[in-house]
Amino acid sequence: MSGHNPSGLTREMAVAARAAGAALAALPAGERSALLRALAGALAEPETRAAVFAANAADIERARAAEAAGAPVPASIKRLGLDAAKLDSVIEGLRQLADMPELANQVTLRRELDDGLILERKSCPLGVLGVVFEARPDAMVQIVGLAWKSGNAVLLKGGSEARESNRALAAVVQRVLAARGLDGRAAVLLEDRADVGALLGLHGVVDLIVARGSSEFVQHVQRSTRIPVMGHAAGVCHLYLHAAADPAMAARVAVDAKCSYPAACNSIEALLWDPGAGAALDAALAALVKAGVELRGCPATRARHPDIKPASDDDWGHEFGALVLAVRQVADLDGALAFIERHGSRHTEAIVTADPAAAERFLTAVDAGSVFHNASNRFADGFRYGLGAEVGVSTDKLHARGPVGVEGLLTYRWLLRGQGQVTTSYGAGGRKYKHRDLK
Amino acid sequence: MSGHNPSGLTREMAVAARAAGAALAALPAGERSALLRALAGALAEPETRAAVFAANAADIERARAAEAAGAPVPASIKRLGLDAAKLDSVIEGLRQLADMPELANQVTLRRELDDGLILERKSCPLGVLGVVFEARPDAMVQIVGLAWKSGNAVLLKGGSEARESNRALAAVVQRVLAARGLDGRAAVLLEDRADVGALLGLHGVVDLIVARGSSEFVQHVQRSTRIPVMGHAAGVCHLYLHAAADPAMAARVAVDAKCSYPAACNSIEALLWDPGAGAALDAALAALVKAGVELRGCPATRARHPDIKPASDDDWGHEFGALVLAVRQVADLDGALAFIERHGSRHTEAIVTADPAAAERFLTAVDAGSVFHNASNRFADGFRYGLGAEVGVSTDKLHARGPVGVEGLLTYRWLLRGQGQVTTSYGAGGRKYKHRDLK
Repeated sequence: MSGHNPSGLTREMAVAARAAGAALAALPAGERSALLRALAGALAEPETRAAVFAANAADIERARAAEAAGAPVPASIKRLGLDAAKLDSVIEGLRQLADMPELANQVTLRRELDDGLILERKSCPLGVLGVVFEARPDAMVQIVGLAWKSGNAVLLKGGSEARESNRALAAVVQRVLAARGLDGRAAVLLEDRADVGALLGLHGVVDLIVARGSSEFVQHVQRSTRIPVMGHAAGVCHLYLHAAADPAMAARVAVDAKCSYPAACNSIEALLWDPGAGAALDAALAALVKAGVELRGCPATRARHPDIKPASDDDWGHEFGALVLAVRQVADLDGALAFIERHGSRHTEAIVTADPAAAERFLTAVDAGSVFHNASNRFADGFRYGLGAEVGVSTDKLHARGPVGVEGLLTYRWLLRGQGQVTTSYGAGGRKYKHRDLK
Repeated sequence: MSGHNPSGLTREMAVAARAAGAALAALPAGERSALLRALAGALAEPETRAAVFAANAADIERARAAEAAGAPVPASIKRLGLDAAKLDSVIEGLRQLADMPELANQVTLRRELDDGLILERKSCPLGVLGVVFEARPDAMVQIVGLAWKSGNAVLLKGGSEARESNRALAAVVQRVLAARGLDGRAAVLLEDRADVGALLGLHGVVDLIVARGSSEFVQHVQRSTRIPVMGHAAGVCHLYLHAAADPAMAARVAVDAKCSYPAACNSIEALLWDPGAGAALDAALAALVKAGVELRGCPATRARHPDIKPASDDDWGHEFGALVLAVRQVADLDGALAFIERHGSRHTEAIVTADPAAAERFLTAVDAGSVFHNASNRFADGFRYGLGAEVGVSTDKLHARGPVGVEGLLTYRWLLRGQGQVTTSYGAGGRKYKHRDLK
């Protein structure tokens, strides 16, 4: 089996993937973790690494040639590179996932409704996942790992810039499945651009679409399918320097939150500051300028730092995805909350303050997937949260929120085992439900 | 405050409801349960009951007059009646809900990422619910109870046939809120038909639409809004008589599953039978005919019971919602699974068998919200499951599945408390994450 699919996605293929996923989900506990360890082991082999790095080098060369020829290069070109450190981190993530407790096929509630009438709520995989992701080869391995750990089949379509890397990785994935006698359709790599449209049309077979990439792309996916879509159309995150912010901490956190990976969705786009946080602002701006950040300020900010460019109205709530940061004074904590409510994308919001009451107020009031106190927004990540990896970050409120790991790929069923009981035996003058929770 | 809203739903009203809901969510633990007990107490008062029953009688009289005048009367007219037994059951449900442990504002995970860097996952209300429900006054109280227990504000639009009943109940709701000094906009009754359209347009303010009613209506709602919709467009449930089905049990369960409330979504629409289940079929059909059910059979069924009308192709997967039942022979358990996969609406499916292996296979393989062994499909209900009540039944796989109680009205946020940590301190050559789960 080749590990990629040159002939175009069909409904029959998705149905076959569903069956392959069901076989995976039915494996005895621990077998799926063994599969993850086998994938980690295969990726650690010297020959495999060499093949993957060679494929990645070809992708990078192609991207550079395109750039030299004047083609537009996405801001995320940095993500295309797969070096030894990134691969090691992916392997480490697979092993973390393997070590994590089994979350699928778990009884999460057992309740005696009456004598011999036992209700269970049992977790189970969603079924078939369709994941469309950016040109980032390490993401492919993470997604396969999460899908297998949760017992789901997965149809993957990665950015075409990473085509060779993804092919090399998919070959490893297929080798690992085949070595254990498992159906290769439990993880199918799609290569044709038209496959995205085909995937979005598979309502009733594909259970969840995970969409990653640009805001425009995610919105396009959301508009184009009846299948539920998980993802985030925007990552507009703020860092708020409260009046009681320590200047050195403010500078350290701001630089990490803006500069450590400006293209990442959990990087900040705007810095908010309290009128009482002048010293913290000064320290943060000095450090940001030193790190090469272009600042754009509101009038109050520019009154204190006249060398900063003025911000335009479009800069608030805008995802720069680059070393550009908007800076705005807010009246107080309430002003910060109102500004974030209006301009944030409910992704990750952070406050720096030494005042515990202000911190708790911020943590309670901000309606976002992740809310932080005295920590960089960039901690919002499945690996850093100890989820092993993430299939994506959700800014929706339903089902899964923030970094999505195994739990977000599961659903549950209510199972009831009886002895012929009927509902008309209960109620006025009849039997009463016991509703006794069992271990 | 009148408890109903004659002037039409606006975005400002929904924003005010959100604030009222946030105040409700911020109440100390136990206060929301006390509110539910106060509502239960108010509904148990003799004068209140008299007022509610009088209003309900006026609704029923109006419906009868419309029927006499030749207006089409929905199959659910039975649901309009609110008698003492139904009201008692609603009051009992409110008390059950009040007694249930607090599910909102609970820390469901606490993890040390590193020294002094503590991650929490904390449950919280969704915010504002919009619930559009059928002409069924008891549902209104259940929905308010679930919304308050979960800390959500709720905008309610009930079927206009129950207008007087809903007004009377809303007046009680408002009285209970006012007596505790709470904002009445935590539960707003909408009365204008145009309010449904307004509600569906409140993307970004209303967090979840719960749609109940006819299949056509639910589908209309799903197509008409960008807000997530919870509900079920169809309740096509099956009962499968396996070769090892006990005839007396088969008859008892079939009659309960079809006849105890034919208009309910968890009633069965088709009876499947194994060639080896002839005696169970005979017993079930005799009991169903005696209960007044019109049967429609496949050729194999009619070969054994020639007096039965032939079923048409449209009868399979059709929701009769009345005393009509399609009857079909399937080759075996696999045949039953395939038939249910094709024609079921993923609501509730049941098997009658004395064979434990067949039962477990059925419980494992059927992809539906609820799957039962030797129990009537009609047990699929929030009250019977011990959830206190249900806001609706979900046939979707994401977020909430089957009967939806308090948990389905909650989401969560990831909270991180640090001391100024930044992500660049971690990774190759730097610090390692501890990922130690705390109590």
